[in-house]
Amino acid sequence: MINAVGRELPERIGNYIVKPYAGPQEAIEAEAPVCSRRKPAKCAAAGTKLLPDLKAAILACGLKDGMTISFHHSFREGDKIIGQVLSAIKELGIRGLCFAPSAVVNIKNPSIVDFVKDGTINRIQASGIRGELGDAVVDGLELAEPVILRPHGARPHAIETGALSIDVAFIGASAADEFGNCTGQIGPNACGSLGYSFIDAASAEHVVVITDNLVPYPCVPMSISQMYVDYVVKVAQIGDPKKIGAGATRMTKNPRDLLIAQRCADIMAASRLFKDGYSFQTGAGAIPVACTNYLADYTENAGIQASFALGGMTGAIVEMHKRGLLRSMLCSQSFDVVAARAIAENPTILEIDNSMYANMFNKSCALDKLNFGILGALEVDTDFNINILTGSSGEMMGGLGGGPDVADGADISIVTLPIIRGRIPSVVDRVFTCCTPGSSVAVVVTEAGIALNPKHKNYEMLKEDLEKAGVKTVSIRYLRDMAYSLTGFPKPVETSDKVTCIVEYRDGTVMDVIYQRKGEV
Amino acid sequence: MINAVGRELPERIGNYIVKPYAGPQEAIEAEAPVCSRRKPAKCAAAGTKLLPDLKAAILACGLKDGMTISFHHSFREGDKIIGQVLSAIKELGIRGLCFAPSAVVNIKNPSIVDFVKDGTINRIQASGIRGELGDAVVDGLELAEPVILRPHGARPHAIETGALSIDVAFIGASAADEFGNCTGQIGPNACGSLGYSFIDAASAEHVVVITDNLVPYPCVPMSISQMYVDYVVKVAQIGDPKKIGAGATRMTKNPRDLLIAQRCADIMAASRLFKDGYSFQTGAGAIPVACTNYLADYTENAGIQASFALGGMTGAIVEMHKRGLLRSMLCSQSFDVVAARAIAENPTILEIDNSMYANMFNKSCALDKLNFGILGALEVDTDFNINILTGSSGEMMGGLGGGPDVADGADISIVTLPIIRGRIPSVVDRVFTCCTPGSSVAVVVTEAGIALNPKHKNYEMLKEDLEKAGVKTVSIRYLRDMAYSLTGFPKPVETSDKVTCIVEYRDGTVMDVIYQRKGEV
Repeated sequence: MINAVGRELPERIGNYIVKPYAGPQEAIEAEAPVCSRRKPAKCAAAGTKLLPDLKAAILACGLKDGMTISFHHSFREGDKIIGQVLSAIKELGIRGLCFAPSAVVNIKNPSIVDFVKDGTINRIQASGIRGELGDAVVDGLELAEPVILRPHGARPHAIETGALSIDVAFIGASAADEFGNCTGQIGPNACGSLGYSFIDAASAEHVVVITDNLVPYPCVPMSISQMYVDYVVKVAQIGDPKKIGAGATRMTKNPRDLLIAQRCADIMAASRLFKDGYSFQTGAGAIPVACTNYLADYTENAGIQASFALGGMTGAIVEMHKRGLLRSMLCSQSFDVVAARAIAENPTILEIDNSMYANMFNKSCALDKLNFGILGALEVDTDFNINILTGSSGEMMGGLGGGPDVADGADISIVTLPIIRGRIPSVVDRVFTCCTPGSSVAVVVTEAGIALNPKHKNYEMLKEDLEKAGVKTVSIRYLRDMAYSLTGFPKPVETSDKVTCIVEYRDGTVMDVIYQRKGEV
Repeated sequence: MINAVGRELPERIGNYIVKPYAGPQEAIEAEAPVCSRRKPAKCAAAGTKLLPDLKAAILACGLKDGMTISFHHSFREGDKIIGQVLSAIKELGIRGLCFAPSAVVNIKNPSIVDFVKDGTINRIQASGIRGELGDAVVDGLELAEPVILRPHGARPHAIETGALSIDVAFIGASAADEFGNCTGQIGPNACGSLGYSFIDAASAEHVVVITDNLVPYPCVPMSISQMYVDYVVKVAQIGDPKKIGAGATRMTKNPRDLLIAQRCADIMAASRLFKDGYSFQTGAGAIPVACTNYLADYTENAGIQASFALGGMTGAIVEMHKRGLLRSMLCSQSFDVVAARAIAENPTILEIDNSMYANMFNKSCALDKLNFGILGALEVDTDFNINILTGSSGEMMGGLGGGPDVADGADISIVTLPIIRGRIPSVVDRVFTCCTPGSSVAVVVTEAGIALNPKHKNYEMLKEDLEKAGVKTVSIRYLRDMAYSLTGFPKPVETSDKVTCIVEYRDGTVMDVIYQRKGEV
């Protein structure tokens, strides 16, 4: 079976029935949502939902072997919820769980790999598993089923249709009252938007709010309502906000990154869509932050105002908002401390549901209104297919995040990457793992040139705009040739025939699979 | 079949299977929620959900004979949505609809009765049908099924379980963008909280947002997300905010009402629950507004602050908040223009989902944390049962609203009413229609005295507190005797055996039925 991006796929993988990606033209019939939520909490009648510790909450929820648990990844590397909860579960002797956070974050002592090895977890579903866990998985870590990787927009739909049915959602909140009203916007360890947890709260069979900052009833702001929450537990610390996006708001001094960022802003400013009321999503990292700053200057010079920034927010975007160059921010995720605290301070910065952000099975999502989307990538190939997961030797280097969603949703999707990293080419003949179909990528920006995708829906418009503005372009093959001329032809990654990860697309079909690396077990 | 408040009920009424009210001790097993929402909107791909007029939206939603339509009642007597929509439906020749607004509002030229008579509507479900429609119903207006009256807290559960399955929800919004993000908080005709529509938006098969104030994308504040909205229609005017609660914020000069309001505040202030962080719901009308003002003074004099006010908000409550005597407002409904505009102006005034407010099948609702709830009533009987629907000759004089929910949820539920109105007694042997079970009523306050309910869960506590404060009480029989001594024994209302209305309780059981009045057809 070969899907629309030319990937050979098995028809089924264990119990998983593969629906191959059929291309952007093929409308997927929406499955009917299912609901499991909202049996009245047993302890609310007692005047509080507060339980003494995590073990009490886990037991009260009736967590049993083989069930599915979820978490948000808002604290990223600073998360202190997942380790505490998994340790408590392990001590209770509950095993064989499906671990289904919005994304896996790297925790240490113990790590997620340890919880897999000791049998606490035996299945994983997330948008990404970068780090120790990901590398262990592609090297053959023993799991009952392959890992399912879904972009942010696909997760809410999987939850609503029951493809991902959550038994207990554990939601870390930087402020909560004893009835479970909670937020991530205030408190000593504010993590910002809890937008990834809204679907978990509304859909999980049981919901436990975990906080280190119990506030008087009612918790205001109120990001998640008590109507969804079974139990509340207070712990010493839910996470370290300084580690959410350490350095993400600093302007890079790397001249290559600055050049790519500048070109990216040049393209946006050259587009006819760059006018009063335009919208953008830049994301986190050195290039996006620099690009946001350049974009702000372009906006100021043009005497216009953007209508909204979307998705993950940085201090750079908050700064643009403060300068009056951006009317509103639709924030599904906060990438740094500045962005985390900004929501509570300004009524035009909205905390939005991740489903509202990116779920294509909604009656529309905010991505449908996005003009410009900036995307990072590990590899791009001559079909403009994007790899945001695996590195040159097949190791797990990234997560899907909202990348595939943004590429599809934005009028102009701009992929930014250097043509080589170290001795490794980034522009190649065929990406090792296809995550985002080339048909949804408008343009690739590198330090060696800008390549337009002739097959993108807005190719003619963008080509005309760039020519008018004197922005030069090259072909994607030119970039590949230049990359290969610097690095030589890359050695293919050798794999076994065991599928370790299934890469889903935003419509729930399979974009690719990742096989176990050979000789690494 | 006789239910727990002594009402004789048929076992079924047409297709409606009667579950008799079984008393407060009988926990009702929650039914599993069902979902029908969120197939992707057909027109979102076209870059807008805006359709030229109501007829286009009605047709696009596929509205057909026999389907169910819903509305919110936030504009109350100032509503201009319902008339426009029903007229458009009628002109399209669609008939036999179930009309299921959160509450029926009185509209004229044409009236709802006209739409029943011409066959556009043949079934009605709402929290109340006060006015011309209600009177016509109890006098035998021809409908395919009896009207189902549900308190506010029961409606979301009925929707979630499919007992009330909405095909098309029409949501009036005072600001909306072309993708359906919308709010009632801003715009020339702001109506305030859209909390009653949240469940409709999330659950209806199709959702049409109707606005007279189309704003640039994205609409901020964003009370309802585009993720739930199929179509948007702009009309000349959605409603007249001046008529939401004309006069509701004025302090009454009626000495009887002022006396009752003062006594009501005296009771709250005498309670041990009146301490820093206490909570209250007062509601709309002369007595509640006066009571709020007295309560504010008590709070100031005690040097304390209330934690939250709940439910329907008035300018009097906003004033208390402004004076620093109230930390937050959980607003499911705005009873006047001041309250309607206050949400957007203050981050501690929250627009909350009506389900979060009052749905007992949630994992908890805000009512579970309410200390004091003030309730109006048309009649109370010696079992403390409350009638908030029918008048002395069986006519429809009120709606259930959140009354039964608040009585059950509040620690101290205080019913306020004069012992007689004109030549009609209000304290009687047996209420004509039982809406709120006496077991949930703590105290009845009249101009002739205060009666405590010895069967209320907090009777001993309240009795002790009132004695300590020197607040005198009488028996409910004393109040009845006094009322009867002034009016004489009331003539019973004669009815036929045709059930015109089914009065549901917040748990979905039947509290009472209303029979057709005799000799009035």
